[in-house]
Amino acid sequence: MKIESFKCENCGSTYMPNGDLMLCPKCKYPLLPIYNLNFLRGKFKIEKLKNRRPFLWRYWELLPTIKKKNIISLMEGYTPIIESNRVKRKLGVKDLKFKLEYVNPTGSLKDRGSTMLISWLKQLGIKSIADDSSGNAAASISAYSSRAGIKCTIYMPEKTPTSKIVQALLYGAKVLVVAGGRTETAEKILTDMEKGKIYYASHNMSPYFLEGFKTFAYEIVEQLEGKLPDHIIFPVGGGSLFLGAYRGFVEAEEIGWIRHLPKLHIVQPEACNPIVKAYEKRSELVEPVEEKETVAGGLKIVNPPRGRSIMKALFKCNGTAISVKEEEIIEGYLLLAKEGIFAEPTSATVIPALKKLVEDEIIGRDESVLLPITGFGLKDLKTAINIAEKLKQYN
Amino acid sequence: MKIESFKCENCGSTYMPNGDLMLCPKCKYPLLPIYNLNFLRGKFKIEKLKNRRPFLWRYWELLPTIKKKNIISLMEGYTPIIESNRVKRKLGVKDLKFKLEYVNPTGSLKDRGSTMLISWLKQLGIKSIADDSSGNAAASISAYSSRAGIKCTIYMPEKTPTSKIVQALLYGAKVLVVAGGRTETAEKILTDMEKGKIYYASHNMSPYFLEGFKTFAYEIVEQLEGKLPDHIIFPVGGGSLFLGAYRGFVEAEEIGWIRHLPKLHIVQPEACNPIVKAYEKRSELVEPVEEKETVAGGLKIVNPPRGRSIMKALFKCNGTAISVKEEEIIEGYLLLAKEGIFAEPTSATVIPALKKLVEDEIIGRDESVLLPITGFGLKDLKTAINIAEKLKQYN
Repeated sequence: MKIESFKCENCGSTYMPNGDLMLCPKCKYPLLPIYNLNFLRGKFKIEKLKNRRPFLWRYWELLPTIKKKNIISLMEGYTPIIESNRVKRKLGVKDLKFKLEYVNPTGSLKDRGSTMLISWLKQLGIKSIADDSSGNAAASISAYSSRAGIKCTIYMPEKTPTSKIVQALLYGAKVLVVAGGRTETAEKILTDMEKGKIYYASHNMSPYFLEGFKTFAYEIVEQLEGKLPDHIIFPVGGGSLFLGAYRGFVEAEEIGWIRHLPKLHIVQPEACNPIVKAYEKRSELVEPVEEKETVAGGLKIVNPPRGRSIMKALFKCNGTAISVKEEEIIEGYLLLAKEGIFAEPTSATVIPALKKLVEDEIIGRDESVLLPITGFGLKDLKTAINIAEKLKQYN
Repeated sequence: MKIESFKCENCGSTYMPNGDLMLCPKCKYPLLPIYNLNFLRGKFKIEKLKNRRPFLWRYWELLPTIKKKNIISLMEGYTPIIESNRVKRKLGVKDLKFKLEYVNPTGSLKDRGSTMLISWLKQLGIKSIADDSSGNAAASISAYSSRAGIKCTIYMPEKTPTSKIVQALLYGAKVLVVAGGRTETAEKILTDMEKGKIYYASHNMSPYFLEGFKTFAYEIVEQLEGKLPDHIIFPVGGGSLFLGAYRGFVEAEEIGWIRHLPKLHIVQPEACNPIVKAYEKRSELVEPVEEKETVAGGLKIVNPPRGRSIMKALFKCNGTAISVKEEEIIEGYLLLAKEGIFAEPTSATVIPALKKLVEDEIIGRDESVLLPITGFGLKDLKTAINIAEKLKQYN
């Protein structure tokens, strides 16, 4: 699909489509691609997809135009949706489903973004990139770069433990250790970009990375045969999955696949909840919070680059944003495992969030709910061992 | 599908079907279920499957009869097949594909067996089981048991590191630590079974667990639209995937989906290669080897319970069995990662095996090859860290 323009949701500027454009030249806000979908309305039937292979490129008509030879894929997406049994009973909800996003080739949701971004960069002829991340995105971007034959350097804060970066290293990425924390690392990579030292392929800011997550919504529409859940709860750090899914549902509505959007809610840990704070003020302006420790490592983003876009989307679909405590995350983690779902703590935040939203009657017990499970449990082995050791199931 | 009898491939005895039967009452060899497939020949077209959900139960007509309400599934199977780019060029083969078995709900191939075995036990009304494993099977059996509401105890050798068992513990399994190594652990669980203390649901010996792996073959037939690979190479420990796949291909031939079988080869580490030793003597009798250390932890089975069946299958399909060295496994591990595939070392054995089989002209450079990638790289984080630390990609 052809991008007609790039839009800045911060200052309202629009720009001519340009593959290299990432940030608004005026205000440095990450841009969004804008399409014209009118010509597909009512003409692109979902039944048409039936015989396509079960991966996210089955929706190529709704994704940025990339030539087949440039597509770098590990057969990501089209992740399974399973029914809950135990969590459902425990929380007293009638219809609860999980979408297992960790059943992706590098073990997390990020592969949806990476296949899109890296394929696009391959098409542009880029030979070497840099990104900053110490988690799932580092691993995912590294895997796809390596497969594409693109050199990849990951900027990481000095304190990042080896276990967190080992997957990226093995795929073949180089790691540049930056003195300081996440903030210093982000500053360093931006400076290096401005100096022309690197090609900064930011997973958190690239319009293409974000586009990959629209497929999460298309899949729900297709896999559930139009029987949309009433509510979906997203753990939000940078917000790629939440924003991507929102955009995907909006498009699905535009082309006539669905009649209305599900309510999309957001959960963050109390230790790092800039979105929740803005929501409580009913403000579109997300202000940075202090960097505190949380077991939900994937959500430790104190100043989400697309904050304003997240808030706009949240208000438009009548969603809620709530915080959960550390001990509630651990409880959710163990409860999920009892369903046979071993997720990283970041992913488990949706369980206490669902509990609270039901108690607060924002989600009715008779309504249907879908929870994405974003990352595999072994992604954070240290926490897994800490928790397992307290269980006393040894004999 | 109805099982007509249970057969012992060791002493040749056959028995009336009985859900609880696992070992031959005469010689203690693990039994195989026998079906009558004649009635399906030419009548069960593969096109019939098209609109079914992408998981292994889509082949229910070819699997043991289990009522829908008893099926315990996490949407396992129907794993992606991807094309090689780098490994292909490096080894000079024309057509190389990988089937990503680690893209399963607990991160390994074992989920194919677990969904079958645990669903069957649920149908029998079993409330509590025991199994012995320190690896992927422990995690998988625990996950499915937990989901089924069946209590699960895993017997493990005393030296098993916590990191290896943490996944099983979190799913909710109890762990019984046995003094000694794998041999003592196997003896202890058999004694406890004979004393009637436990219900031993052995993943290595259960006929039902094995049945799950037939679907690996059906999927290849369906996903590649009948264009079978000429060769498949299997890492073999207990041999579930190899034997299951063999049985699946034989059935696919019987019902008319394919005309002949691919050649199925076996790889084992030099440190633990009882199958290779029997193959070199062209013998059906597999003799136990000494327990030595190998980075391919999943293949450390010194005396595979279904040894004779593995040899029979290997000889029937004109396959080869070869050993690979520890350093070759590590090389294969790193080469796979460069394709974007982060696998555990056990899975990487297929890379040096392919290299050797090509050099020995057992596999022609123009022939097509498929390699299963059985377990996710994070399943063995210790090895991953050891290897990553030597790469010197830090800056």
